[in-house]
Amino acid sequence: MSDETVMLGHGSGGSMMRRIIDEVFFEAYGTDELAEGNDAAVLPAPQTGERIACSTDSFVVDPLFFPGGDIGHLAVCGTVNDVATSGARPAYLTCGFILEEGLPMEDLRRICASMASTAKEAGVRIVTGDTKVVNRGHGDGVFINTSGIGFVPEGLDLSGANIRPGDAIIVSGTMGDHGITIMSCREGLGFQANIESDAAPLNHMIADVIAAAPNVRCFRDPTRGGLASTLNELADQSGVELIVEESCVPVKAAVAGACEMLGYDVLQVANEGKMVCCVPPDEAEAAVEAMRKSPYGCDACVIGSAQAVPDGGKPRVLLQTAFGGKRILDMLVGEQLPRIC
Amino acid sequence: MSDETVMLGHGSGGSMMRRIIDEVFFEAYGTDELAEGNDAAVLPAPQTGERIACSTDSFVVDPLFFPGGDIGHLAVCGTVNDVATSGARPAYLTCGFILEEGLPMEDLRRICASMASTAKEAGVRIVTGDTKVVNRGHGDGVFINTSGIGFVPEGLDLSGANIRPGDAIIVSGTMGDHGITIMSCREGLGFQANIESDAAPLNHMIADVIAAAPNVRCFRDPTRGGLASTLNELADQSGVELIVEESCVPVKAAVAGACEMLGYDVLQVANEGKMVCCVPPDEAEAAVEAMRKSPYGCDACVIGSAQAVPDGGKPRVLLQTAFGGKRILDMLVGEQLPRIC
Repeated sequence: MSDETVMLGHGSGGSMMRRIIDEVFFEAYGTDELAEGNDAAVLPAPQTGERIACSTDSFVVDPLFFPGGDIGHLAVCGTVNDVATSGARPAYLTCGFILEEGLPMEDLRRICASMASTAKEAGVRIVTGDTKVVNRGHGDGVFINTSGIGFVPEGLDLSGANIRPGDAIIVSGTMGDHGITIMSCREGLGFQANIESDAAPLNHMIADVIAAAPNVRCFRDPTRGGLASTLNELADQSGVELIVEESCVPVKAAVAGACEMLGYDVLQVANEGKMVCCVPPDEAEAAVEAMRKSPYGCDACVIGSAQAVPDGGKPRVLLQTAFGGKRILDMLVGEQLPRIC
Repeated sequence: MSDETVMLGHGSGGSMMRRIIDEVFFEAYGTDELAEGNDAAVLPAPQTGERIACSTDSFVVDPLFFPGGDIGHLAVCGTVNDVATSGARPAYLTCGFILEEGLPMEDLRRICASMASTAKEAGVRIVTGDTKVVNRGHGDGVFINTSGIGFVPEGLDLSGANIRPGDAIIVSGTMGDHGITIMSCREGLGFQANIESDAAPLNHMIADVIAAAPNVRCFRDPTRGGLASTLNELADQSGVELIVEESCVPVKAAVAGACEMLGYDVLQVANEGKMVCCVPPDEAEAAVEAMRKSPYGCDACVIGSAQAVPDGGKPRVLLQTAFGGKRILDMLVGEQLPRIC
């Protein structure tokens, strides 16, 4: 395309917008529905008995490109994973861009190529989109919204409210990789030599866990706020106490070191390619095994279990520390790592 | 809520985010699905034979509040209308906010209340959402993405590719009101004393037209790029020539005057509460009548018709001017009114 940077006219609704759609978006991930050029994509009905799952996420990560991914990869993974947590097979994505005037067109092309390749891996199709351009200084390069639609098989009812005392808590791998990678890039800390973002589409792994552990209670994506915030949400939803063995939580040495230096609690640092999963105790082994067979779950393990809230108590999350003590693991308060996704 | 402005922590995934969700979003438009607190909303299957329609739109309008509406009202109308153009009954919306640090919480509350009231009028429910906060100077108050899901009745296949020679072209009302209102507000031109945005949810009107004119070919929302760009898209999709009688296109006197002063072609100015609709000639009267019964269609009328492309010609749009001549009506080139939606 002759346009080397994004201009206001690319969001005009007129011929320049037509050009960016045809030459950038279409070129990267053209689908039949996009080609039809209507205001809405019309999609086949789900199979009998299936329900619809939908989710939405906006991505404002800074920087746009980082070790292990970029905003486009993240935008596909994030929504695919959110839809998949319901047990749904993610099928379709919508994609809304908010571009800042002056963005190099080459950056947008790279981002779109990355979205296309991740969507292919996840088996989802981008069926409709929107492009807005804001004047220079009123955005920040690229913001992306993706919304996802998937189909939940009949009879499957996963929810963070399903956890029962005795259930095992599983994580699919190491904690904190994404957040520390972004922080390191942004602040020029140099940790990124040793670590990279874990951003990955986990829908196939989730489907394998459901097949192996049919009574699985829920999946949850420990993104912003990290494992600590996710577990607090789950404890609240289910009205249980969750006990986590600190020594069982997998953390890469480089990430642990970075957290120590920066004063972060790794359990509050975001992940973009990990799942928390709760299962009845007799299905824990099968669930962990299914995760380990996935390219994104090789470090999967049980990290704790649920128990009843003591009389008069409230749902909470307790961390059994390496030193034998117990402490309350709180949700993130305030913000330590803005714009990590 | 104690927080008077939006802070980075409101996008953290932790306890501050929980607070903004509970005290602002929930307070305005809490639904059962939102209350469940899972990463994806699970929705009932459509009725047998229905297909799924989906659409997405990001809103970056400047200013956030304007005569006749605000960004929240616009964000619901825009997506409801896009979904409805397929003939679908819009049912669910997702909502993604990108907030700038420092935004007054009161502004966000007003926007959310407006979204809730427009969603109620349209009969759609906001079932899942996302909140990101960007640091001061890297956004512009509020950007909103809405994505919509609707259900297309069995046997209904509307598309911009369906137009046949002889079909009538109808618009549901006056052109240019929204774009000129925004421009006037932003530039302090003072026209807004006499005009206001037309932003409105048109799904009920569209359903009435489909009932009255069952062979309707398509609906299209003449937003960015205005009627001119929309008609050019339709001519291209259907491979026909569209002839528009300039004198038949309804335009408010204040809008016409503003366009003349500013040098805009009103046919390239955005609308947010109007529909273009193409129908077989024998259903034109019924379609216009159905529109006129809607509170948003009282100025509906036929503005022209489709004809076959002459041998060796290309699809195009011709304007029969008030002076008896004909000129080619082009798509908008470049950008004249950035950030009108």
